[in-house]
Amino acid sequence: MRLLTPGPTTIPEQVLSKFAEPVIHHRTALFEEIFKQLQSQLRWLFQTEQPVLSLACTGTGAMEATVVNLFSPSDEVITVNAGKFGERWTKICKTYGLTVHELMVERGKSVELAALTALLDAHPHVKAVLFQASETSTGALMPVEAIVTHCKKRNVLSVCDGITAVGIFNLPMDRWGIDVLITGSQKALMLPPGLAFIALSERAWKLAEQSQLPKFYFDLKRERKMQDKLQTAWTPAISLIQGAVVALKMLQDRGHEAAFKHHECLAHATRSAAKALGLEFFASSPSPVLTTVKVPPQILEGKKIVKRMLEKYGVIITGGQDELEGKILRLSHFGYTDIFDVVTGIAALEMALLELGYPVELGKGVGAAQKAFQEFK
Amino acid sequence: MRLLTPGPTTIPEQVLSKFAEPVIHHRTALFEEIFKQLQSQLRWLFQTEQPVLSLACTGTGAMEATVVNLFSPSDEVITVNAGKFGERWTKICKTYGLTVHELMVERGKSVELAALTALLDAHPHVKAVLFQASETSTGALMPVEAIVTHCKKRNVLSVCDGITAVGIFNLPMDRWGIDVLITGSQKALMLPPGLAFIALSERAWKLAEQSQLPKFYFDLKRERKMQDKLQTAWTPAISLIQGAVVALKMLQDRGHEAAFKHHECLAHATRSAAKALGLEFFASSPSPVLTTVKVPPQILEGKKIVKRMLEKYGVIITGGQDELEGKILRLSHFGYTDIFDVVTGIAALEMALLELGYPVELGKGVGAAQKAFQEFK
Repeated sequence: MRLLTPGPTTIPEQVLSKFAEPVIHHRTALFEEIFKQLQSQLRWLFQTEQPVLSLACTGTGAMEATVVNLFSPSDEVITVNAGKFGERWTKICKTYGLTVHELMVERGKSVELAALTALLDAHPHVKAVLFQASETSTGALMPVEAIVTHCKKRNVLSVCDGITAVGIFNLPMDRWGIDVLITGSQKALMLPPGLAFIALSERAWKLAEQSQLPKFYFDLKRERKMQDKLQTAWTPAISLIQGAVVALKMLQDRGHEAAFKHHECLAHATRSAAKALGLEFFASSPSPVLTTVKVPPQILEGKKIVKRMLEKYGVIITGGQDELEGKILRLSHFGYTDIFDVVTGIAALEMALLELGYPVELGKGVGAAQKAFQEFK
Repeated sequence: MRLLTPGPTTIPEQVLSKFAEPVIHHRTALFEEIFKQLQSQLRWLFQTEQPVLSLACTGTGAMEATVVNLFSPSDEVITVNAGKFGERWTKICKTYGLTVHELMVERGKSVELAALTALLDAHPHVKAVLFQASETSTGALMPVEAIVTHCKKRNVLSVCDGITAVGIFNLPMDRWGIDVLITGSQKALMLPPGLAFIALSERAWKLAEQSQLPKFYFDLKRERKMQDKLQTAWTPAISLIQGAVVALKMLQDRGHEAAFKHHECLAHATRSAAKALGLEFFASSPSPVLTTVKVPPQILEGKKIVKRMLEKYGVIITGGQDELEGKILRLSHFGYTDIFDVVTGIAALEMALLELGYPVELGKGVGAAQKAFQEFK
């Protein structure tokens, strides 16, 4: 079965085989050595000098950790709701009694800076802007650097959900001045889900000192103190940490630039294929993470395409969620993935589309992907 | 390296090899089939008809989930603090603004029912008693059935941390009327850490309906609703769930009675060995989970024994934590463990003790363990 989904992504064989090795005990020098290596790898991944904390949870846990560690009841924040994941920031902040100014963004669109600055102007007491680097539910890329720059100017914290972004495209935390950056294990890190990573800027750590919201499992100050001793506050997800060191070594061997270029190339190939097949793009500023296309009018129900690809061809792509259910297709192209995964995905898509009544010249999309790949510079 | 620790425990080869298999996508019929099987296995494990929820976190996360889902600010609870883990209940409850009546229990002792009932009498508005089935930091077994019975009589909820207990000794949730029971993956379930399991009685679910504490990642009502659809609220720890089905099948093949008897037998063998070596027991009502002994006066620092066993012999036992640091040794005997693990552990202990100046006749403890094992009925 082939995973062309925005997480979990395919796990490399050398990482999978690591999981077949015995799990070590976490209160040992051996664990501490591994954990030390992971920390340096994560700082490389996040492009930061700050500690990157490892939490035994999935990405949503790290989003909640951010909120409960930075804020106090009735603090004002702005959330950028450009899709399901932006909406999640809103929900978490409201759960904890924050005053949330939600910037609604049309599905498939990127946030407009003018709208954001207007909202910042209207609410001078806002402490942070919470947003996604890539809104994976729509495929839209957000203008991270510009958002961060605007936040910095106003002394507002920038909180970036990079769950499906870190390691896929460039998000230099320190250089851009991102105040909080998070990611999850089952994305660019090519691991099973169950680990989340989070880094805070000095400014964010200062705000964390004043936070009055309750936290225990997700207490980042405690986690940081323990991490300084090469330990975790609670029992860590040891096997995932053992695997993470192997996966991150692979990422390091390739290097950031090559990885970012690779993902851009696969995005370009996928988009060339979709275009050749006459499919209409959904996201206006598409992210290198995934390509979203509208379900063609000849096929009313997008779910049928996803189902056919899975059941007949063993290729998993994802459809739309919530209000986009059945309306879009999401083709991912990141992680342990190369041009031949794109070829496979497009080939399966072509066959499924044809079988469901959409006119396709078989191989046309595949050829376009190959051509785009060869010509990519 | 041999793990004779109260978690993580050794993972069976057939479970480890499962982790080398590709991770499946969680929004598929295949995952739902696996997850359905896991749910039925977990109900068997917990001896309950209630749903047992799977959370992507370690045990402490499930403890916090319990507190934030059952209670409201300033609710009154009793926590049984018989060690580090009981103290954790207190800390979590206080973090969330509950009024906590803490029943302090001398380290190594079990809770006295008279003290508990007196505290219940003194505080008629208490909503729940939170306790451990086995206080793993001291090795003391708690009188779970009696605590639950007392709670039921007074219409007070019984919240049992069974993290290092479920699957090791008998805790029939429904029959005894335990209101909340939790466990973690890296204990009797023979899995890596990263999954926690929790079940609530009907009474507990009713209380959860009224809870006013904030929760998002640990929202059990949401989790239950999703589980009814064979899904999880957030991305599940898929690989651990795939492994859990294999591990639980092994437990089911053995059956509860055989497993409980097996652990009692290993406890008996370990204790016979410790006695033969002249070591003094620390816990007065010892749990079948582990045997705690005092560090002999000839060796001032208990840490030296643990260190020697690890570094020279590759056998990991644990010492005391916090105020018990250096004062006790904790020898675990549960999970994927048999008499030969006990033999190994005792043999390593004998050699380490001798080398550190404690008089030992090599093989005496081992022989006593063997004899106890053979004679155990």
